[in-house]
Amino acid sequence: MEKNRKIIDTSGAVIVSCASAVGGKEFEGPLGACFDFHDPTDSFGQKTFERSEAEMQRLVLATAISRIGAKASDIDALFAGDLLNQCVSSAYGLLEYDIPYFGLYGACSTAAEGLMLASVFASRGITRMAAAVTSSHNAAAERQYRNPLEYGGQRTPTAQWTVTGAGAFVVSNAENAERDNVFAEVIEAFPGIVVEKGITDAANMGAAMAPAAADTLLNYFEVSGTSPSDFDMIVSGDLGKEGVSILGEILSASGVDASEKLFDCGMMIYDAEAQDVHAGGSGCGCSAVVLASHLFPKLKSGEISEILFYGTGAMMSPSSLKQGLAIPAVAHLLRLRSPAAKYK
Amino acid sequence: MEKNRKIIDTSGAVIVSCASAVGGKEFEGPLGACFDFHDPTDSFGQKTFERSEAEMQRLVLATAISRIGAKASDIDALFAGDLLNQCVSSAYGLLEYDIPYFGLYGACSTAAEGLMLASVFASRGITRMAAAVTSSHNAAAERQYRNPLEYGGQRTPTAQWTVTGAGAFVVSNAENAERDNVFAEVIEAFPGIVVEKGITDAANMGAAMAPAAADTLLNYFEVSGTSPSDFDMIVSGDLGKEGVSILGEILSASGVDASEKLFDCGMMIYDAEAQDVHAGGSGCGCSAVVLASHLFPKLKSGEISEILFYGTGAMMSPSSLKQGLAIPAVAHLLRLRSPAAKYK
Repeated sequence: MEKNRKIIDTSGAVIVSCASAVGGKEFEGPLGACFDFHDPTDSFGQKTFERSEAEMQRLVLATAISRIGAKASDIDALFAGDLLNQCVSSAYGLLEYDIPYFGLYGACSTAAEGLMLASVFASRGITRMAAAVTSSHNAAAERQYRNPLEYGGQRTPTAQWTVTGAGAFVVSNAENAERDNVFAEVIEAFPGIVVEKGITDAANMGAAMAPAAADTLLNYFEVSGTSPSDFDMIVSGDLGKEGVSILGEILSASGVDASEKLFDCGMMIYDAEAQDVHAGGSGCGCSAVVLASHLFPKLKSGEISEILFYGTGAMMSPSSLKQGLAIPAVAHLLRLRSPAAKYK
Repeated sequence: MEKNRKIIDTSGAVIVSCASAVGGKEFEGPLGACFDFHDPTDSFGQKTFERSEAEMQRLVLATAISRIGAKASDIDALFAGDLLNQCVSSAYGLLEYDIPYFGLYGACSTAAEGLMLASVFASRGITRMAAAVTSSHNAAAERQYRNPLEYGGQRTPTAQWTVTGAGAFVVSNAENAERDNVFAEVIEAFPGIVVEKGITDAANMGAAMAPAAADTLLNYFEVSGTSPSDFDMIVSGDLGKEGVSILGEILSASGVDASEKLFDCGMMIYDAEAQDVHAGGSGCGCSAVVLASHLFPKLKSGEISEILFYGTGAMMSPSSLKQGLAIPAVAHLLRLRSPAAKYK
């Protein structure tokens, strides 16, 4: 059967700016010093968790734009979404920007989905610059998806910890980009399909998302003719310890050994033992802040030269779970290259 | 100040197939005979309202694909979203399709947003064919946004009635399209910015969305050098009677007389008096089914030759309203032309 899994050529798209903001727990983690902003109270001066999350989006986009000497009017499109019902962090957080707004819902794959669409628009000259923004907030997510924090619910070993954080990215066409601003080239994009393998445990998102991740990676390797050895790192957004382990097993069973190359933003952002986060971090903000403040700087400096980054999202809702449905997931992949190679 | 409101050239993108499914009330309305499927029970054989909505999405996409003799593997990208928390109608309804999936959240502007992105992808040759799908379900929306139907809440005169319905569209590049399949050319796309003018009444979405509609229309007329007289119709997704009235006033105050040209899918789909829907229909499904089964066929036949269609979305959530925030809205516009002119 003919497959419709095609690589989208995004060559020409370059990440020219990014910014991140995180909460207290993320600042205390191993990558704490990398992030642009942090608030130990997680509130960013706002009265509700939801507005705190929106404020982080506003802040990181303002920073990403101003740090390259640009204005909001230089950005022709905004791709944004988040985990809150009706994606209100994005709608309210980005309200002050008079930038054409494309709302996304990709759950925790939103950073990858937004970067993908912004890169398509930038590479084809549809926009001069396009931005992608996303966020999550631990307390807002807990009370929406599970229980308010005050309830003190016990967490299972496979549970993940929703990151309080927001990341923003500005994507330009290489022709219009200043060399010194370029963090990474977005070479290719490979959007995922929705996959559901019967997992109904909302406290085990890693298991629900790993099959989608495997589907995207295996198809990408096949279509691109690459293998894990071609990349410095193969980085997931927030599969967590459980999800990465399951993914490794699925890949092995398909004859692909990627064990040395699999990394996960959710496992990098916290010290799992010391910070008691069980299987690792999760949420739209997780991959966004790790990309913005850890991986993109490493690509910029040439410390790493080429990676696959893929964001996974679990697309269920509390209602769909209560109605007995299993958890569908999607994984969107980007091939990112250090500009050091191109310009050296 | 330089504006970043630019027209996206989507010439080359053509709508080659569409399909619609509606509930009982929509079938009883003035356009009832146009729709492809209807179920007087609104259930489409499913046990919950949410699953009924998902089933409508599955059904209309299957129909839109098969009616042009295509297979799911011919569709390279799927742009989908809906009103339910975490957009579960789309995630579950489209699960059986192994098509790369871009999740959207644009509230009731989703049909326009999806068509816009599918048209960008098709016109630039990123995909062979791309599909856009969206839906809403009255009972699912009522219990999520307001109260379960059993509560029997009283509705205010400005309230709108969420349409039970789903629409699917297949967008191709004109080069690969069979002439006989073409419903309309998508000439241009003009994405909107998020606008919030202080409306906090969730029973008056028309007032919340009209300023966004006016912003998009006024900027489009300015940037394109067109005026309302250049179009047969200027059709909103679901502004409703109140929203269209406010929009007309804003346009008039800006020196633009569009009064003869303003139409609204939400006002077309029901007989407001006889069906007791107050200000008209609303919901992602509203514009989707009216486009799919009423406007596109008229463009195909040449009965109308060129229209502006714009979808408006109110981007608040029940939580954001409870926290005292006003309602932000967005309006995405498409310029659609009958193929009759091109091929005659």
